[in-house]
Amino acid sequence: MRIGVLHPGEMGVSVAQALADSGHEVGWVRNDRSSATQARAAPFTGFDNLAELLETAQAVISVCPPHAAEAQAREVAAAGFAGVYVDANAVSPATAARIAEVVGAGYVDAGIVGPPALTPGTTRMYVSGPRAEEVQSWFGAGALTVVRMAGDLTAASALKMAYAAYTKGSSALLLAVNALAEATGVRDVLAQEWAISQPGLSKRSERTAAATSRKAWRFAGEMQEISQTFSEAGLPGEFHAGAAQLYERMAGLKDLPAAELELVLQHLLEDL
Amino acid sequence: MRIGVLHPGEMGVSVAQALADSGHEVGWVRNDRSSATQARAAPFTGFDNLAELLETAQAVISVCPPHAAEAQAREVAAAGFAGVYVDANAVSPATAARIAEVVGAGYVDAGIVGPPALTPGTTRMYVSGPRAEEVQSWFGAGALTVVRMAGDLTAASALKMAYAAYTKGSSALLLAVNALAEATGVRDVLAQEWAISQPGLSKRSERTAAATSRKAWRFAGEMQEISQTFSEAGLPGEFHAGAAQLYERMAGLKDLPAAELELVLQHLLEDL
Repeated sequence: MRIGVLHPGEMGVSVAQALADSGHEVGWVRNDRSSATQARAAPFTGFDNLAELLETAQAVISVCPPHAAEAQAREVAAAGFAGVYVDANAVSPATAARIAEVVGAGYVDAGIVGPPALTPGTTRMYVSGPRAEEVQSWFGAGALTVVRMAGDLTAASALKMAYAAYTKGSSALLLAVNALAEATGVRDVLAQEWAISQPGLSKRSERTAAATSRKAWRFAGEMQEISQTFSEAGLPGEFHAGAAQLYERMAGLKDLPAAELELVLQHLLEDL
Repeated sequence: MRIGVLHPGEMGVSVAQALADSGHEVGWVRNDRSSATQARAAPFTGFDNLAELLETAQAVISVCPPHAAEAQAREVAAAGFAGVYVDANAVSPATAARIAEVVGAGYVDAGIVGPPALTPGTTRMYVSGPRAEEVQSWFGAGALTVVRMAGDLTAASALKMAYAAYTKGSSALLLAVNALAEATGVRDVLAQEWAISQPGLSKRSERTAAATSRKAWRFAGEMQEISQTFSEAGLPGEFHAGAAQLYERMAGLKDLPAAELELVLQHLLEDL
């Protein structure tokens, strides 16, 4: 098959590689992409614009920041694409349902858990809905594990939201607590208390700063999707509304090296 | 010395015991207390009402649910008490500062970290402000460790807020995530994914349910104090506003045995 991947970021390129390893031709769209994307996507078939790719592709997988997912689907639908459209983005079930409406019968929901799939076993793409089995059948080889879920059309998005709600939510909480301790002048004593009763939290704070600083700019949108998912389920959406604000303050760290905790705290507390 | 403890809940009675072990006479007030409190406080000197206790006590330590802390201080101040008043409650630095104003020169801020102090090494009471050393000097023996902090008058409250912000905040988040997964029908798959990539989270969910169910009724007020502490520091208060709502929904579990996760989720999702 020829399958388009929109777009080959670090995660997208690992999905593209799994498709290529499974014997498919993978297409991508060159226009308006960064030089980093150009370099990552070089092994795959580049098209000058979306219309050219969609003319020959039988399927498309969307892997993009959550805030861009719906617009991406609309753009593909507007081009009259009638193939399978896999939305693998971190969006709420409600956003996924809107995308499903835009896309029509070709829609398949997916949610990716784990880092970009470079090694087998690290990363799973969950797929749901009546055409999930079809998508799973594309991946015979490669580092990405594809797991078919029973349940609703948008179950894969629900799973992704619940999973990221804890991992990225608790990371935001930990950074916020460090910032609070810094702002109130009790960071040293908190570190001493943690050393006694919560061993590992100081180290985890440092690791969390380094692991999130460059991605925080796109976590904000994901936290908003999670917040909406909680609200839609009748649960408090505030946790992740707070987490979204926190990651927004870190957006300026995007193009810097992985940040130390001190630098993250400066960003969280600046302009106060 | 004769020192009053208001009131001998599980934590309060352990503070009282540490004072008794250090050679002080500990007083408490019998009126309006539950039969559980009456039983716990039996080894100490009971007074019929607050005025009688305050007449002879040189110091008072307030250990009560956060939402009651300010009213407790006002009641003691209104009785004309001129001794040392230690507020050991989980309140924001701003609430602590209001209590300090109510109480006057005798005020000392404290924050307790850990379970009721039954065994040495489990529990620390942090004290701050100009009279902190005096309070520390009362505790020569017993299971409670008293730690003096440098810094502001209300540093002990700031420490307590930052500490509980992570422990009780992440517990609330974990329960909320389980409730979300239940509500959206993906709990089984989430548990399978956690077993691969977040080992321990399912077990921790069960332990968290059991550890919080009976105390959630008073955690709600503490979460509100923490939310205010974040807001006052210019950081997102939403995390703990969400946690407060979550614990409020669990308030009905107060007088039941430690709850299983299923029962906690029922409470979190009922009336939806």
